[in-house]
Amino acid sequence: MRELGLDIPDYTDPPYGGRYGQVLPYRRIGNLLLLSGLTPEDRAGNRVHPGRFGDDLTVAQGYEAARRTAINALGLIRLAVGSLDRVVAIGRNLCYLRTTDDFEDLHLVSAGVSELFIDVFGPERGKAARASIGVAALSRHNCFELCTDLEVAG
Amino acid sequence: MRELGLDIPDYTDPPYGGRYGQVLPYRRIGNLLLLSGLTPEDRAGNRVHPGRFGDDLTVAQGYEAARRTAINALGLIRLAVGSLDRVVAIGRNLCYLRTTDDFEDLHLVSAGVSELFIDVFGPERGKAARASIGVAALSRHNCFELCTDLEVAG
Amino acid sequence: MRELGLDIPDYTDPPYGGRYGQVLPYRRIGNLLLLSGLTPEDRAGNRVHPGRFGDDLTVAQGYEAARRTAINALGLIRLAVGSLDRVVAIGRNLCYLRTTDDFEDLHLVSAGVSELFIDVFGPERGKAARASIGVAALSRHNCFELCTDLEVAG
Repeated sequence: MRELGLDIPDYTDPPYGGRYGQVLPYRRIGNLLLLSGLTPEDRAGNRVHPGRFGDDLTVAQGYEAARRTAINALGLIRLAVGSLDRVVAIGRNLCYLRTTDDFEDLHLVSAGVSELFIDVFGPERGKAARASIGVAALSRHNCFELCTDLEVAG
Repeated sequence: MRELGLDIPDYTDPPYGGRYGQVLPYRRIGNLLLLSGLTPEDRAGNRVHPGRFGDDLTVAQGYEAARRTAINALGLIRLAVGSLDRVVAIGRNLCYLRTTDDFEDLHLVSAGVSELFIDVFGPERGKAARASIGVAALSRHNCFELCTDLEVAG
Repeated sequence: MRELGLDIPDYTDPPYGGRYGQVLPYRRIGNLLLLSGLTPEDRAGNRVHPGRFGDDLTVAQGYEAARRTAINALGLIRLAVGSLDRVVAIGRNLCYLRTTDDFEDLHLVSAGVSELFIDVFGPERGKAARASIGVAALSRHNCFELCTDLEVAG
């Protein structure tokens, strides 16, 4: 596990969900952990590169936003199971990007998620299935939203 | 369980799927129940507020459509496991909204799902993970589509 | 199992993922198999009917693209568990279509997935839950992307 230098958010303080209402950060069904949708926002609500791919955002900005979102997912995982050591494997990253109709390079943005998880968990546990979907709108004009399914133990 | 006053649809009569072809209403894999996508339609095909957020629909109309969709999910759950008592916990609600490019208040619409499940199952079992995604099109111009994963027993 | 005549791709040669980076074709969590998003591309990258529903594509072209995508999924399933005989049941097909804002017949396109799986596995194992979502963009202007969850054994 290589957490050095990552600013992993603490979702206990303030508690998760204040901004978005009556939602849980995750549910665990057996060893399957389903995370809520995460955006590239910090705990204070500051967004990394709100906007739209194919319009006002570059792929490099998207990669950065996707990476920030994955770091937020680390915070949710730690909240769910106490330690990142309990991650058996990242299962699938369902990546939604806010795009125009003609944006094509979705995978270059979602790579920010995939590579962060590989950096942290190594390829055995961190490399995962993925889909990348370009959509019209995300909450608060965020440019990226991540829905991760993973396997946990303990 | 508080079902009083809710008009939970009966998906046995007519059988589920007539309108949309060769699909199942759900599949169960162990204790994980995966529901098919549901829209705010009644069994006769009447739609609650077809349209688009950011254009011709208000958030209040969306909340009502989302709530109706969640009531439909209760019908599918009952079809799958016989009784709502067998719901261990709602896992995650993947909410798709038909929106313009600049709609931001997706969570206020999806709240109609989250709050209905909490009303029916209580917060311990009904509160769930969630993602809200604004998309271009849904079947028959419905404004909302819900994909729910949940844990069941028995 | 009826594989006769289907051109099921071999994802070992060349290895899966070259085009789209650091991703796995699937992850298995217990008996739940989560597939990566698949598009109607062959192994050489040739696309079946790139474009957009409601604009330059017909429903018949979409059905063909969806069917090709499902055949690709057979290749991933075989890669994951060695043989299609190990499929207990297709769970849910999450179908994303690249559409204009006013396309309504999403289910007629997604039927290409549902019917292929029923052709191959029979209705007991191949009929599945489904959702169909119209989105702004998919990788390389593909018109269809499929995310399948299924139950496997052995």
